[in-house]
Amino acid sequence: MTPIPASLDTLLAALRDSLGPRHVVTDPADMAPYLVESRKLYTGAALAVLRPGTTEEVGFAVRACTQAGIAIVPLGGNTGLTGAGVPQGGMVLSLERMTRLRSVDPVDATITVEAGMILQEVQAAADAAGMLFPLSYASRGSARIGGGISTNAGGIAVLAYGNARDLVLGLEVVLADGRVWNGLKALRKDNAGYDLKQLFIGSEGTLGIVTAAVLKLFPKTRSSAVAFVGLDSARAALALFVFLRTRLDRDLTAFEYLPPFALDIVLRHVPGTVRPLAEAHSAYALIEVASARPDADARAALEAALGQAIEEGLIADAALGASGAQDDALWRLREGVPEAQTREGASIKHDVSVPLSRLPDFLERAGAACVAAMPGLRPCGFGHFGDGNIHFNLTQPEDMPAAEFLAQWGRFNRIVHDIVHALGGSIAAEHGVGLIKRDELVRYGDPVGLDLMRRLKAALDPKALLNPGKVLGPTAGETPPPA
Amino acid sequence: MTPIPASLDTLLAALRDSLGPRHVVTDPADMAPYLVESRKLYTGAALAVLRPGTTEEVGFAVRACTQAGIAIVPLGGNTGLTGAGVPQGGMVLSLERMTRLRSVDPVDATITVEAGMILQEVQAAADAAGMLFPLSYASRGSARIGGGISTNAGGIAVLAYGNARDLVLGLEVVLADGRVWNGLKALRKDNAGYDLKQLFIGSEGTLGIVTAAVLKLFPKTRSSAVAFVGLDSARAALALFVFLRTRLDRDLTAFEYLPPFALDIVLRHVPGTVRPLAEAHSAYALIEVASARPDADARAALEAALGQAIEEGLIADAALGASGAQDDALWRLREGVPEAQTREGASIKHDVSVPLSRLPDFLERAGAACVAAMPGLRPCGFGHFGDGNIHFNLTQPEDMPAAEFLAQWGRFNRIVHDIVHALGGSIAAEHGVGLIKRDELVRYGDPVGLDLMRRLKAALDPKALLNPGKVLGPTAGETPPPA
Repeated sequence: MTPIPASLDTLLAALRDSLGPRHVVTDPADMAPYLVESRKLYTGAALAVLRPGTTEEVGFAVRACTQAGIAIVPLGGNTGLTGAGVPQGGMVLSLERMTRLRSVDPVDATITVEAGMILQEVQAAADAAGMLFPLSYASRGSARIGGGISTNAGGIAVLAYGNARDLVLGLEVVLADGRVWNGLKALRKDNAGYDLKQLFIGSEGTLGIVTAAVLKLFPKTRSSAVAFVGLDSARAALALFVFLRTRLDRDLTAFEYLPPFALDIVLRHVPGTVRPLAEAHSAYALIEVASARPDADARAALEAALGQAIEEGLIADAALGASGAQDDALWRLREGVPEAQTREGASIKHDVSVPLSRLPDFLERAGAACVAAMPGLRPCGFGHFGDGNIHFNLTQPEDMPAAEFLAQWGRFNRIVHDIVHALGGSIAAEHGVGLIKRDELVRYGDPVGLDLMRRLKAALDPKALLNPGKVLGPTAGETPPPA
Repeated sequence: MTPIPASLDTLLAALRDSLGPRHVVTDPADMAPYLVESRKLYTGAALAVLRPGTTEEVGFAVRACTQAGIAIVPLGGNTGLTGAGVPQGGMVLSLERMTRLRSVDPVDATITVEAGMILQEVQAAADAAGMLFPLSYASRGSARIGGGISTNAGGIAVLAYGNARDLVLGLEVVLADGRVWNGLKALRKDNAGYDLKQLFIGSEGTLGIVTAAVLKLFPKTRSSAVAFVGLDSARAALALFVFLRTRLDRDLTAFEYLPPFALDIVLRHVPGTVRPLAEAHSAYALIEVASARPDADARAALEAALGQAIEEGLIADAALGASGAQDDALWRLREGVPEAQTREGASIKHDVSVPLSRLPDFLERAGAACVAAMPGLRPCGFGHFGDGNIHFNLTQPEDMPAAEFLAQWGRFNRIVHDIVHALGGSIAAEHGVGLIKRDELVRYGDPVGLDLMRRLKAALDPKALLNPGKVLGPTAGETPPPA
């Protein structure tokens, strides 16, 4: 155990005074859930878990800790996939008690929420006000909005509505010295000086702690349709995407990609799923069309577009959902992939993006290189094709022990990320960097860009106490062990 | 004249060697056009005008100057409205020779251009590739894209496509020490560390000099329609906007506002304009609907929406363009306002934004306060209503000498900006800060936010040689004289 110095006792006493004794957690059993991340790749250690209930309390806690030279690791719903919320000493600062809906305004088309609000509850509050908050991803029932903002989360609605960054109008942020920056503006245009909120979106709590946000709302979807199509190749998927983007314009709201292996394991492992097309194909896409226009008929529009695509030889076969229930069933084929992968064995994962035109090249080259490196390995590159973002996961060979496979994590990172880099892509598309990719960021990052990032860190957090070791990390050593 | 020290001779010689003698301009007559901004509110002074032709030459020029302690003022098309491009000593660095189209890719839906490319030429290059680059504003025939990015320009397509910031995927930037940051990524998702491009968008050349950009393209518009409607009040305009936003969703691409005075002076001063509605009304809106969907019928959609709005009592009268020529004529009523204002006399101008729900309050309160302060003054608050952005310009009383009126610039700034600030708005919505609003920024800015801005400036430009005095300015003195 780390010996607790007298000054830490003093600090904890001051924090108990400010936050209330129940919200300074030091009991190891009570702390445990805050120290392990969702995939259990990392286990952290902390002196205490702080649970402030207000922005002022966050400010007090940060000021008290950083004055004492104690690091702070902000934590939302603990659903991150990079270890960004795992403490390596210092204090965990959980936003879980800051769950207030501050306001919602259907005329402004904005909602102002505290960072600890669960994403699904933000969606529900928007819906209750007659509007849509489009950010959405699998963990929406437990992810907190502050985490989504701090990681610039992506998800299933990016094609039409953008990433989390695109949905933020204003932020309230506690800085490294405990001061509060109030940038809670509800403006569509604001060029009054530097756009400070951009610093805190996607910087994973390393430059400040987001405590509240003003978010954009949109008219509610009134008509939507989903199709699942069979294709001859990833190259055909790209041609189809370009065709549909031109034809459906902003009504094309999702274009997700599955290789045959992904569909096979979903059908094998996810209860209630049914093969959507009579024949097997070399590639699949899930397509969604949606609009808020009351006169829009999304199903007719999608059917007509797919009909023309079949005529032009872009699609081998297509299944169009005939009802909301059928649409949901088709979405389940896509959303079931991560669960199916877990059941199929161990996976080595990559969350990458490339320019749209390079997607087929990437899938072909990375798949071939990985299979060549380990015969029997099963590449499963699926996901947000329309955003250029592939979850290029590798499922272990059937006969290999999981641990033996996972020991190759670094080797496959190198193979896949080298190809991504050569194609002008990103090794961290939507999940962020955290611990898991901080060494990769240094390896592939432009040196001038990395220097700029370090200058920003030094300017905003000169003592390096906000989520230390994440994103830019201490570059020496500490490559994280997978699983 | 500033005496030229020996070291400046050395510097100029080195610059002539690198850029070529023709591109280091020191002749006063040749320099003159670079020293006066479009509205002639400011006249600058500079040691020389540099015209580098490549990114490497920009890097050399910046390194050479900043090593010598000489300031650099980057300049695009010199169409800015805030004095951000006016030098107060040092060197002007014109991007006018960096006009290359580096690439355009209709599959990626991206275009990569150098900073000196004229906005209209970027639009034309996108069009030639079968795509749309939506950023557009009145000065598009001479504004350069680097200036639009550096000021986060707005314009007439923000409602559907966002500000310049929303259209930038990647940047190439020359930093204060002359190094080049290559962030020319063509990715829709990239969370590999801090999003550095955000620093340089909208910071008006004070943190770095944008030399090239990767921009987003969109499917071309295939159907569009325009209407000009008469309304009972600004409050009715807001109700109509909310109604149309819900009904037309992303197909509502413009909602511009005009008070009766604006329409009257356009009809008086702009040749070829015709009153669009039989009766006069208390407020007007120009509405555009557009889509790239081949089956979309924008005119029918707009007609149906307006019909319902009339039934619901939201609109007093409406004129729907029946052809592209008629649509253009309706647009001319909106786009003619600045010219008509110039012909009607002197104007004191404000480029402000408020939350959408506060627009009617703002227009009423600011109009009443200004008229109370100067009877006979004619408020002309018009513009991008759907973005919450009003050009709240004040036309002089008919019988007052222009100079006497313009001497009140600061007084009216105070009246208008106080109201904007009280309503949670921005005193610099789409034109930026430059020289004209730097003292206002300090007055109304959150002190914590201003401190963060100064830290960013110090981190990226420690010698304060990039466009010095702009945005954050030396806070002491130097309030710019109007006209």
